[in-house]
Amino acid sequence: MASTDRRISESTIHRLSIYYRALNQLEKENYETISSKELAKREKLTPAQVRKDLSFFGSFGTRGLGYPVTELRNKIAEILGINRTWNVALIGVGNIGSALVSYKEFQKQGFKIKKLFDNDQRKIGSNHKGIIVSDIKNIFEELTNSDIEIVIIAVPTATAQILVDDVVRSGIKAILNFAPVNLKVPDDVDVRNENMAMELEYLSFSLCYAKGRS
Amino acid sequence: MASTDRRISESTIHRLSIYYRALNQLEKENYETISSKELAKREKLTPAQVRKDLSFFGSFGTRGLGYPVTELRNKIAEILGINRTWNVALIGVGNIGSALVSYKEFQKQGFKIKKLFDNDQRKIGSNHKGIIVSDIKNIFEELTNSDIEIVIIAVPTATAQILVDDVVRSGIKAILNFAPVNLKVPDDVDVRNENMAMELEYLSFSLCYAKGRS
Repeated sequence: MASTDRRISESTIHRLSIYYRALNQLEKENYETISSKELAKREKLTPAQVRKDLSFFGSFGTRGLGYPVTELRNKIAEILGINRTWNVALIGVGNIGSALVSYKEFQKQGFKIKKLFDNDQRKIGSNHKGIIVSDIKNIFEELTNSDIEIVIIAVPTATAQILVDDVVRSGIKAILNFAPVNLKVPDDVDVRNENMAMELEYLSFSLCYAKGRS
Repeated sequence: MASTDRRISESTIHRLSIYYRALNQLEKENYETISSKELAKREKLTPAQVRKDLSFFGSFGTRGLGYPVTELRNKIAEILGINRTWNVALIGVGNIGSALVSYKEFQKQGFKIKKLFDNDQRKIGSNHKGIIVSDIKNIFEELTNSDIEIVIIAVPTATAQILVDDVVRSGIKAILNFAPVNLKVPDDVDVRNENMAMELEYLSFSLCYAKGRS
């Protein structure tokens, strides 16, 4: 985690992403305002939680009228930093990496994959969805003083740390890691780990509790 | 969310998945015991948080000695339900779906993809990594009274709800959803949403706060 002073907790930020999507949907459904109660119900949260989360950002809601949908959506986009585009590099154009290049949610939220890296000679130099794949040997050179702000790691566990060291040396401060390994980075670099199996573990936990221990 | 009585919060379950991975790593490093302080440091949590999380499962730690690594790892596996295998069906063999079929973390944690569904005539009937792809028209028939316990949805937003209705009718109680849409399911069905852009939004939030609003 970065050493920056964070008044907003990790789970609040996660819920802001959820509210953002709900408000987008509400706008499509022509809602002009939404109460904390309705928003909570849609997202299976408590109205108190919604009010608490949104209270961080000043007084939005009008008692009896609720929150203005578009204004709140735009405010959350600003807080999350998705009212602009971010330049992203992706390291590892394998199964997961290839899927991420085509992942529409990234584009929709303003995350533009602009550089690709791989170690496979058959991929290096080839055009992948309009981007020429670079050699992972050149990560440091290509990222230093570049316009890339966020790096996604989608390589096997064994090579992830070495590549991340290059990424960190190049000055990148934000990394999304798909390798199932705890990456070591300096305190001023933020790493988020994406492990799709963890969500399945939540489901298996629920199934065990719902059905009784099996 | 399921209507089951959950004494353990969502974020605790998530941390259990993290502890499980840390303990696996510690076992590889030949640790026999680990203190809450060391475990907390590795995962960038507080020792108090670690002790609180693990206290749910009875008294494990011995003051001065710490937690027994293997025993605690096994206990957490049991709680998460990953001390056994789970049969999984995957709907949508596109970019994301294909990557998930090859995703090693699923297999490692005991989640076995045993059925695949797609609506593409070129894919239906073909052998994908040893599994014959079925027609999505047959979801209800193929899942009813089958050994499938968890379903993963990796189809575009527009078709996700219709397919989920078939999944729910077939009696499935646990769904992992990659479509960026809020699926409507009965209270006794658990849906977890996986949206990879949300982790990037956490990073963009951090970058904004670290660098000042840009």
